[in-house]
Amino acid sequence: MAERIQDASTTIGMVLYPGVTLLDVAGRYEVFARLPGVHVALLAAALDPIHTEQGMIIVPDTRFNDTAFDVLFVPGGPGQMDVIEDQHFLGYIRRYGEVAKWVTSVCTGSLLLAAAGLLRRRCATTHWLSMDLLECLGVKTVPERVVIDGNRITAAGVSAGIDLALVVVARLISEDVAKEIQLLIEYDPKPLFRSGSVRTADKPTIKRVTSQRRALQERRRAQIERIAVRLTDNEGCGD
Amino acid sequence: MAERIQDASTTIGMVLYPGVTLLDVAGRYEVFARLPGVHVALLAAALDPIHTEQGMIIVPDTRFNDTAFDVLFVPGGPGQMDVIEDQHFLGYIRRYGEVAKWVTSVCTGSLLLAAAGLLRRRCATTHWLSMDLLECLGVKTVPERVVIDGNRITAAGVSAGIDLALVVVARLISEDVAKEIQLLIEYDPKPLFRSGSVRTADKPTIKRVTSQRRALQERRRAQIERIAVRLTDNEGCGD
Repeated sequence: MAERIQDASTTIGMVLYPGVTLLDVAGRYEVFARLPGVHVALLAAALDPIHTEQGMIIVPDTRFNDTAFDVLFVPGGPGQMDVIEDQHFLGYIRRYGEVAKWVTSVCTGSLLLAAAGLLRRRCATTHWLSMDLLECLGVKTVPERVVIDGNRITAAGVSAGIDLALVVVARLISEDVAKEIQLLIEYDPKPLFRSGSVRTADKPTIKRVTSQRRALQERRRAQIERIAVRLTDNEGCGD
Repeated sequence: MAERIQDASTTIGMVLYPGVTLLDVAGRYEVFARLPGVHVALLAAALDPIHTEQGMIIVPDTRFNDTAFDVLFVPGGPGQMDVIEDQHFLGYIRRYGEVAKWVTSVCTGSLLLAAAGLLRRRCATTHWLSMDLLECLGVKTVPERVVIDGNRITAAGVSAGIDLALVVVARLISEDVAKEIQLLIEYDPKPLFRSGSVRTADKPTIKRVTSQRRALQERRRAQIERIAVRLTDNEGCGD
């Protein structure tokens, strides 16, 4: 491991935590880990196995430390609620983000970046169900799949991590390498329905999903409002 | 766990092995594990943590056993070469496949289904680099992202697992639930380039990737030719 880090010309810190969404992590990981000369560290507060959102267990390989990574990546998932008020966790996110060349997230990972003060007065995106919560933290939201503002690159929900990863590779390494990886993972998507976005899904589907997620989103909102009050330059958020 | 299986109306067996591609697994898992009334078993020959292709460790939760699953899912990855001649492994794949309502795979997982005799005289697909190898095992290949032949559903490389999963959900549960999950994982792909398929990628990219993978594919071919000879009804394969 130490040897790989030493050899690697680019280092990527992927932050893991219990309740993270597996596909948020895997989409990014599958692209980044294939890069020549790149070391991906699977960062966590402890090295214990982590139960992802739906239960599958993954194992981090690097405890939070003082390393400076070229790219910080923060995935989302319901577990984000358990770490967003953890000052030890947020402190590391903030320190990694302050020195990284690229600060990136997918899904509700951007709520964590925002809570760490890394998206202040920036444009960003998140999972469609949490766009209002990101605004609440003083972020200007943009309803795009991948949003770039300076060295901050954020992506929409879950599967958007693959698109984000290719954007980052094209900027970090080269467009040629991004194309190679896209071909290698055969990313030529053919979704069964036009139901992947609130802009294309039919209304009954949006209504059902919103209803299924209502309790979770209400818990998120109560917490985000509390955090927003603590963040400087933020005057809270209305409905 | 036993309780969850008992409560579940549908059971899905996802086969894991060392060197499996994480995104092959995660794309499917993220869709299936969200289904109400469905139990996903992460099956493996042993319960030891598994190093996936690029190194990230995942943990299976169910040892191969005599359960009958409604859906069998076999992912791909270079580790497929280490299990494709393992008769203990193949025996389980065959037995699960013979009784499952749906037999499914992504990427080079279809080589495993074929070696287990589950794709004989069927139409199927696999990762574009391995299409000739699948033919070599007596399978009629179809260059589509998802191929359905009876109760066999196979998908192209790596990321095609997400598309496959939605197809299976639409048939197994309902189109409404497939749409809900597509919206929940915000699967509204916007690939950076048109480089996800040999039908759209530019020639230099295809050439570079083919060259990078040449040694691996040659090892695969030597092994598949050996296996093809052993499979009944198969007269070997030419170049």
